[in-house]
Parts: sequence; C-alpha cells; structure tokens
Amino acid sequence: MDLQPSLTIGILTSGGDAPGMNACIRSIVRTGLANNARVLGVYNGYEGLIDGEYRPLGARDVGGILQRGGTILQTRRSSRFMEKTGQRDAIRKMNEAGMDALIVVGGDGSLHGAQALHEQGVRVIGIPASIDNDIWGTNIAIGVDTAMNTIMDAVDKLRDTASSHSRAFLVETMGRNSGYLAVMAGIVCGAEVVLIPEVQSTVEEVAQSLENAYKRGKNHSIVIVAEGSGFRATELAKSLDDMDVGFKTRVTVLGHIQRGGSPTAYDRLVASRMGFKAVEALLAGQSGVMTGLKGRGIDLVPIADVIANKREVNMEYYEMAKVLAR
Amino acid sequence: MDLQPSLTIGILTSGGDAPGMNACIRSIVRTGLANNARVLGVYNGYEGLIDGEYRPLGARDVGGILQRGGTILQTRRSSRFMEKTGQRDAIRKMNEAGMDALIVVGGDGSLHGAQALHEQGVRVIGIPASIDNDIWGTNIAIGVDTAMNTIMDAVDKLRDTASSHSRAFLVETMGRNSGYLAVMAGIVCGAEVVLIPEVQSTVEEVAQSLENAYKRGKNHSIVIVAEGSGFRATELAKSLDDMDVGFKTRVTVLGHIQRGGSPTAYDRLVASRMGFKAVEALLAGQSGVMTGLKGRGIDLVPIADVIANKREVNMEYYEMAKVLAR
Amino acid sequence: MDLQPSLTIGILTSGGDAPGMNACIRSIVRTGLANNARVLGVYNGYEGLIDGEYRPLGARDVGGILQRGGTILQTRRSSRFMEKTGQRDAIRKMNEAGMDALIVVGGDGSLHGAQALHEQGVRVIGIPASIDNDIWGTNIAIGVDTAMNTIMDAVDKLRDTASSHSRAFLVETMGRNSGYLAVMAGIVCGAEVVLIPEVQSTVEEVAQSLENAYKRGKNHSIVIVAEGSGFRATELAKSLDDMDVGFKTRVTVLGHIQRGGSPTAYDRLVASRMGFKAVEALLAGQSGVMTGLKGRGIDLVPIADVIANKREVNMEYYEMAKVLAR
Amino acid sequence: MDLQPSLTIGILTSGGDAPGMNACIRSIVRTGLANNARVLGVYNGYEGLIDGEYRPLGARDVGGILQRGGTILQTRRSSRFMEKTGQRDAIRKMNEAGMDALIVVGGDGSLHGAQALHEQGVRVIGIPASIDNDIWGTNIAIGVDTAMNTIMDAVDKLRDTASSHSRAFLVETMGRNSGYLAVMAGIVCGAEVVLIPEVQSTVEEVAQSLENAYKRGKNHSIVIVAEGSGFRATELAKSLDDMDVGFKTRVTVLGHIQRGGSPTAYDRLVASRMGFKAVEALLAGQSGVMTGLKGRGIDLVPIADVIANKREVNMEYYEMAKVLAR
Repeated sequence: MDLQPSLTIGILTSGGDAPGMNACIRSIVRTGLANNARVLGVYNGYEGLIDGEYRPLGARDVGGILQRGGTILQTRRSSRFMEKTGQRDAIRKMNEAGMDALIVVGGDGSLHGAQALHEQGVRVIGIPASIDNDIWGTNIAIGVDTAMNTIMDAVDKLRDTASSHSRAFLVETMGRNSGYLAVMAGIVCGAEVVLIPEVQSTVEEVAQSLENAYKRGKNHSIVIVAEGSGFRATELAKSLDDMDVGFKTRVTVLGHIQRGGSPTAYDRLVASRMGFKAVEALLAGQSGVMTGLKGRGIDLVPIADVIANKREVNMEYYEMAKVLAR
Repeated sequence: MDLQPSLTIGILTSGGDAPGMNACIRSIVRTGLANNARVLGVYNGYEGLIDGEYRPLGARDVGGILQRGGTILQTRRSSRFMEKTGQRDAIRKMNEAGMDALIVVGGDGSLHGAQALHEQGVRVIGIPASIDNDIWGTNIAIGVDTAMNTIMDAVDKLRDTASSHSRAFLVETMGRNSGYLAVMAGIVCGAEVVLIPEVQSTVEEVAQSLENAYKRGKNHSIVIVAEGSGFRATELAKSLDDMDVGFKTRVTVLGHIQRGGSPTAYDRLVASRMGFKAVEALLAGQSGVMTGLKGRGIDLVPIADVIANKREVNMEYYEMAKVLAR
Repeated sequence: MDLQPSLTIGILTSGGDAPGMNACIRSIVRTGLANNARVLGVYNGYEGLIDGEYRPLGARDVGGILQRGGTILQTRRSSRFMEKTGQRDAIRKMNEAGMDALIVVGGDGSLHGAQALHEQGVRVIGIPASIDNDIWGTNIAIGVDTAMNTIMDAVDKLRDTASSHSRAFLVETMGRNSGYLAVMAGIVCGAEVVLIPEVQSTVEEVAQSLENAYKRGKNHSIVIVAEGSGFRATELAKSLDDMDVGFKTRVTVLGHIQRGGSPTAYDRLVASRMGFKAVEALLAGQSGVMTGLKGRGIDLVPIADVIANKREVNMEYYEMAKVLAR
Repeated sequence: MDLQPSLTIGILTSGGDAPGMNACIRSIVRTGLANNARVLGVYNGYEGLIDGEYRPLGARDVGGILQRGGTILQTRRSSRFMEKTGQRDAIRKMNEAGMDALIVVGGDGSLHGAQALHEQGVRVIGIPASIDNDIWGTNIAIGVDTAMNTIMDAVDKLRDTASSHSRAFLVETMGRNSGYLAVMAGIVCGAEVVLIPEVQSTVEEVAQSLENAYKRGKNHSIVIVAEGSGFRATELAKSLDDMDVGFKTRVTVLGHIQRGGSPTAYDRLVASRMGFKAVEALLAGQSGVMTGLKGRGIDLVPIADVIANKREVNMEYYEMAKVLAR
C-alpha cells in the first residue's frame, strides 16, 4: 500500500557554511520519510528557492554525509531574495512544486529570510547554524563546537614549538560581530589575551599583559584576536615587536579552516536533534519558529524574537579566561 | 606584602581516569591562587590521601597540562578508604598538613568517598568525571565528549572501508552500567543497532535489523555494543555470521582508547568551569555538594542526592537513533 | 580539434582496500587524460572486469576523492577470475569495450590476476596497495603509512590513561602473513614486546619481558600482537593476568579501523606518483610490470618476480624496537 | 658489577624546532645506555654548550616524549657560537664535563656549527632536522612528514567549505629558501598553483591558471604560496580579486602551526633510526658525518659535503602537481 505523503518539506542551507549542516539535512530527510513526508532539497540557498532548483531527497541520498563538512545543498548569498519580488517568485515556485513547508538552516541573515516567508503565509522553521554562535535564542548553533576544536588543535600545535623559544603567538579567529568563539577559544587554549568586538582594548594593554606574563616566567603566550576586534594580527604583531614585550611575536591567520572539517560528535548530535525537532514542529503545525538548545532540551523560539535580539558574550567567561591563563 | 593564604585546598582525582581531569586540576590551582588560597595536589587518589602524598601546586606546575589526557595526580582504587579506619587516617593526615578542604574529581565511587568525608566534618566539593556519563545531577561529566569523539572517529574509519565491501561492523564500547555513551555514539555514528544495559535485546532482533538494512540497500551497517549490554562483540559476530544476515561481520573492541587522548574543547571548557565553580563554592563556605551542569550554568547539587539516584538513559535518543539510521 | 584518444586504459582496485587507492585512481585518470588517453573505471574488481562493469572517468569524476579512504571503484574477491574461463570472459569484455590496457591496484592476490592477464597478451601494469606491506619489489605499498599512523594514534591514547594505572596494554594489529606493520608500530609506539608471524615466542617470554619492564620502573607497557602471530590478544591477556607480571592487562582489537581514514600525505604522494608512473609505463609500451618504490624513485619490477618472492621482515628493526623500549 | 661507561655522549638540538626531535633524543639516550655509554643532554642549543647547561639523561627521563612535538632540550640561536671564541669556550666546557662526543640535531646552520667543532678535533655527528627539507645529503629530514600532514589537514578543511562557494584559497606555507614543502603539499592537497622560491612567477600567470580552472568547471582552487616565493598571500589575494578570475579569494597563513604537533609515524621512525645510527657511528669511531636517508638505509655523509651543497627541488614533482590538479 502506497501512502499519500503527509507533507512535502523543502530544506535549504544559507549563509556561511558550518560543519554539521549535512548531519542536519540527513536528520530532516530521514525523520521526514519516517513520518511519511516527502522531502525536497533546495540547492544554492534562496537563489535556488527562487529558481526552483529542487530535487527530491531519499534515505540513500543522505547516506555517508553525516561526517562531511560543508553542505551538499550548497549555499549562496542572494540579493534577489532581499526584495519582495524575489520572495514572491520563490513562493510561486514552491507552490508549483507542491512544497508545503520549508526548513531553513543558517545564520542571522538566513533567519531574516525565513521570517519574511513566514509573514507571507509560508510554513517555515529555522535551524541556527553559524560558527560564530551569534544567534539569539539558542545556547549553541550548529558548527560552533567543530570550529572551536579546530582553533584549539591549531593552538595546541603552536604550544609545542613554544617550549623551545620565548614567543607570543597571535592567532586571528573568525567572529566579525561576536567574540564568543574567541573567548571560548581563549579558555580552552589557555590564552593570555583575548581581543573581541565587545571589549575595547589598546595595544598598550596587550603589551602590558604580555610583559607581565613574561615576567611571571611563562615561556610562551597566546593572544586570540577575533576578526571583528578592530585589530589585525599582523599589524598588532609589528607594534608589539617594536615595544619589546619580552616575547618575540609570530602570527597565524586561520581563515576558512575554521569553517571546515568533519563535524564533532557534539555538532552531529545537536544538528541531528534540531533536524528531528524541526520536522516534528512542522507536523505539529508550527511555523515562524526556530529550534533552540535550552539546557538538555530543544525548544521552539519565535524567529521574530531571534532576529530582534542580539546575543551578548558572557563576560564571566572573559574574566575566567584571564584567571586561568595565569 | 605576603598575604596569609585564605585557605589550603587539596585536590585528588579518583576512579577511572577521564580526559579533562588535568584541565580541571589546572583550573582549581589557578583559581585558588587568584583567590589567595594554597593548593595541595594529593597523589594516587584516596590511597595518597591516607598516606599523606601531598605536594603544593603552583601556577607553573599546571602549565602545559590543559591539553593532556589522563591525570597528573594519578588515580588508584583504594580498599583501605572503604573502611572507617582508612577515612580517619586520611582526616588526621589532612589536619597535619593543614588542609582545610578537599576537591574530589571522579566518578560515582569517588563521590561516595567524598560524602563519607563530608559526613565526618571535612569540607569537600565533588566534581563529576566519568566517560560513561553515569552520574546523576549533571547533564554531563568530564570526559564524555572526548570519549564520544574517539568512538566516532573510529567508526568513521570503518565506514571508509565499508564503501568497498558489504559488511556489518560490531564496535564494542565502554559503559558497564550505562548505555549513554553507546546511544549517543549510535546517533553520531549512524549506527543501525545499539545494544545497551538498559534494554534487553536478542540475537534474533539484531539479525532482523541487519537483514532489514541489507534489504533496504545499505552497503554497510554499524552495531554499537555497550560493555554492559550482556553481549560480547566477538560472540555476537559469530552468531550473526551463522545466521547469514546479508552482511559479513567484523569486530572492533576499542577498549581503553576511549579513556585517552587530548580532551576536546568541550571537555576542557566544562572541566575549567567546574574547577572554577568548586573553588568559588569552597570560598563561599559550601561543603558536601557536587558541581553539576544545568543548562548554561554550573549548579551545586548535594552529593547525598547524587549518590542516591541513578541516572537514566534518555529513551528518546534511543528511538531517534533508529529513525536516523534508516 | 578532437584528438583520437591514444589509448583506452582500464583501472581496477582489488583485494582488501587500502587508504590511498582513491588518490591513485585520481592520478591515473588525470595523467591519462593529460596524455590524450581515455580512462575506464572497472567496478567491483575482477568480478566487474568479467561482467563489463566499466564506466568512463573524466577529470571531474575524480575531483574530491584525493582525501577519501576506501576506493570509489569498490573491491571484491572473485573466485570466477581464479579460473581460466573467467579470465577469458574478462578479456573478451575488455576487447568489446575497446580497452587497450589495464592498471591493477591491489595486493598479492590482485597481482597474480594481473600476471595471468599479462601472460594471455593483455597489457597490464600493477600498483602495490596493501596495509600489511607484504609485497616484494617495493619499499612500501599504498596504505601502509596511514595504517601505521592509525595504530600509533590509538596507542598514544592508551598511553595517556597509562599514566594513572600500572597497566600492560595488548593491541592486536593486522598482519596475517607479515609482521612489518607490527614491528614498525612497535618502534613508533614504544612497545615493550612485538609478536609477529616471523618469530616464534612463548607466553613465558612475553611474561618475562613485562615483568622486567615492571621492575625497571616503567609505569605501563605496550604489547603489539600481529594477527598472524599465533597469539590472540584476549587469550594472551588472560594468561598474563594469571601469571601476575606486575601490570594488569587490558586489550584493544583495532580491526578494520586500520584500513580506513583519510590517507596521510605520504600515502597520497606515493599513490599519486605510482599512478603517474603506471600511465607513463603503458604509454612507453610496457606490460607485466609493477611500480615499486626504490630510494627516491619509482622503478618497474616484473610482476612475475613480485609474486615469486616473499618479502621478509627486516630483523634489524625488530631488534631496534627492543632497545628503544627500555 | 658497575661497568665503566664506554663513552660520554652529549646531545643538542638547534635551530628551528621540528616534530620528531624528541623521538630522536629518546633513541640516542636509550641506544647509548644499551651500549654502556653515558648521555648528557645539552640545553638551549649552542648557547647551553658554551655555558655548560648539561644534565645526565637516563632511560626514564626520555619516557613519554616519543609523541611530543618540540624538543625537551630546547633550542636557541647563538651568535656567540658563530665566533671562534665561543667555540673554544664550548670545547673547554665539554672537556670539563668529560663529554667525549656530541650529536647535533638540527638544520643547515646547526650543521655548520657541528662542522666547526669537528674541525677543531671534537667528535661530532649531525642529524638533519628541518621541516623545510632543505638539507643536502638525505632524502628527508626529521619533521618534514609531520609538517606536510599539518598543511594537508588544513587544506582538506578548506576544501569542505569550498563545496558551497566558488572560491580560491591561498595558503601560505613555510619554506624561506626551499620550495620542497610547498611542492609536495601541492601534490597531496591537489593545488592548482604552487609558488616557490625556485621558480619565478607573475601575478598574471597565477590569474591565468585560476581563470582556466574556473572555466574547466572546478568549484574551488587551492594556491600554495611558499614563504620565500616573493609573494605574500594577502597581497596576492588583493591583486587577484581586482583582476576578477572567477573565484573569490580567501587567505590562510599557517605560520608556526607547521612546526608543531605530535610527530607522525614516519617522523618518529626516521628520527629513531637516525638516533640509533648516530650512536653506532660514534661507537665505530666516526666523526664529522651526518646521518642521511638513502633508499631504505641510513648512510653517513660528510658534513662538509652537506653544507657545501644546496638541495634542489625536484622539478618533476612541480610538473606532476600541475597535471594532477586538472
């Protein structure tokens, strides 16, 4: 007996890619199928939504992707979708394809798009994915844990070579608007100094911290520089070398390495759970909400609230990082 | 001006070692020192507590240990400490050394010891560390995240070779009393079957699941077998081969590899936060409590409650694992 | 202008899979195309050769496989191909498909097959791939370096937990006919004892070595047990525990994990070079030869010699392992 | 019976640190002890040799260092030792300490120092360690394999995120005077373009290669930029973005990460073998020679020849990299 599909669900990934997006897609597809839904993969983000780049996804199509970085659906910025016309074109295409609902996996910008669709009557669920962890309404977004481990592994290697030379290593991390990744990296890497968008610092303060560490007998020092901190690692290094803080400086700019790699267990788990919850939410008739990790459970948070609020960095962690680097 | 130390704090690690114990020791030492406390490392667990194997730990003594597996304080089982006499001997030694309070990092057995000391008037704080995640009162114990990633990396490698042959891989994981690790591993590894102490299963059921997977067209299958499930991977493999389930079986027994390795970012973070919180708790006059992760914060939970309760495996995850392996 | 392809080359992978096989396939395809050849992928080893499972491979078909374990062409044992009839069927299919020559990537059994084809007039080149490194005529086969690093990473993790307990870890590695992998692993892991097919050992000798290590003050001991050594790790562990050698024993059976994982730089390099050389050899009119690493260069060795000779383990390494474990 | 030590051997590490130096130290110490020699660790390179920073090393002192990056003996540049006076001071200190012979582990500069001592009658053996692989007389130096794998892992992560966006990633690697590391990395990473000191390239040529790759349908491109190539990755990126080559560019500067990390199996093996051979050579009365990997064996090469010759990059590899990136 062939059951009539209960629902046709589209999935799209959008914005900067994050490790775990594929685990999330796999979870949505298989949870959907287990609930007698049909699942359509939307390729190339909102661009593909407008252009009707949809392909049905079966259980085998998402085999072997759990452990892969990036997103098999690809992602792209879409300026067309910022306009009402683009949104209307997308809605028409979705209707033509019989798509009843959409799950959007991405960051802040992607959720704005989701909200726009919701307001025009589309059933839509958001799932937060952003290595910066700058999304309000969830403890953690998909990709953060993997990115943090990538930074940590890099700094661990720097520390090896530090045992031989008195050096300060400046490591530039992602985080244009949020210092979350940098602060957490600071704690798990034992960094002496963490420079973030949320806290104003001067070269003199950095120099002072390093000089103090040098005097305390540390044989090396790590400085984490978030992209959005106002400092560029290479220029900061030059200034510090001129000021003679005891340590010689060296620079590492991790760049997009932080977006890549096979997702960690944590990211696969969160991604799987959020995908599962998103399908459940759709089947329960929800729309305009995002899955958010709260304690041990996954909640649903209105996307309107998510995009209206700014996630703050927890300053306690910032202070703790300083104590632990002694 | 030399300040009189506010407090002399002992630290011991006990029971099976867990990745992140060193990160926790480092956090306790540096947070203690920042608060003008003196910190004594107790070597060899409760055995060393009885024998007075104490050494002062300074900020530099815990340099470079954040990233190391195991525990620099070593751990050992102590039958002497199970007896009142042993406990009294330990308390006398602590008094002789001027130790005002003790932080115990370990699993269920270690917390029983901590509670015994607390009941005899010793100021004591517990910190949960156990790769099995079988401790009540905290979302997660130190070491779980690293162990899960170790299992996952192993299974990811098995999957590579699976692309060439139709095989079922049986992976035996730790977890004598708890299926937590196995269930979570099942989700993040995409396992077809998960065998745990909490759920009775038969060889026939396992065979049926594998045969179904084979018929669905899967080119390989993963079975996670928790140590305490009643099955031994090698014997199960023989039975399955006799029953001809489509896949040929292969066995991997991970063993103590699961206890080792440099701690993940998550374990370093939780360990650092719990160490920080434990010192704060001591300074605030607390005793007989354990640090427990609740949502985003670290709470204090009476150790008496922790050891009186059994942590249950979340059966929702068990069910979710099945859906996602389709 | 469309050039007439100079040559149509088939590739097949056969026997146990080895990390680096995909890097080799990629190299053959792109080197072939750069030389105006056409390349056909043969799926499922010699079985597929008989059944005509051939698909043309273009430059983009081998994009993104350099870093993948296993083999995209899959591998399978073929009993049909052991018979003359099977071989003749294969040759007919090759002729029908216009396949002028064949490159076989695999172990000893695969090379026997290649030789059989060569003797019947097929142009064929062999490339050695076997994690056991049991192939005569080349310093190293594809896959060995990755397997060795996998074993090493596992043992490094065991050593972490060894810092806490006095334990002997028994690690069972692959190597049915050759102790190469076990001996090399012994050196890079600092193993106290290495048990291999080439050297007869008794339980008493193993016990003696461990007891000596214990008395010398080692806080842990590693025993590498090659699959073909005549010992099974689990049974050896029981005997040693009965004999009380000082250390308590623990067992790890790595199993097929050793075949998996993304290939190391060394394996990608050797695989790429051998693939490159094999195409060059075909274009130069060679047949019946295998690519073999000699010093810094890749030589061509008659396959007849390769399969007539047995590669011996270098006993100097076996002795060196003992000295270095002191 | 206490044997009179046959010989007192000093070890020093010098120049830039390389993963595997510790494995080499361990091998020298244990091989020395097994041959009844006494071993002195010289701290801080040639500086420590002048200042008499010597400490006896026993078998247990080198326990647990096999897997560690960096060097426990530390390394430092010494301007004093460039002068005859410094060298004479060092020789006097060595005599005072009863040091009969010295093993120097390091790069080109370190070998110059070794040769100076040899010419003044000191028994000295060199061991090549340099992640750049710029030392003549050996196929490979200690540290190269680990550095290459570090670069490769980083690029593999970049490739993940490349599946989503059309991007060219510029990765700056070490290699001030030698393109070896960059060329090899180019092959194992599948780089489109490799820029090295030995080959003059223009921005226009790079742009052309990327544009061609874009037109061929590649969805990403990797450019490896050796430090000594004359290009800086960040500036090259700006130029390419201005020229619009199809791909948008992103930059990663790996920096000292390439020097760190636990050594690979290959580096541990080569380091162990070279340490073993160096002690053997000393016991056989050799001096003024360096251990060099030739084929499967370790040879002894006059240090005078090593420092008189420049190692050339193998241009065949450079060409092969281009073919394979198609």
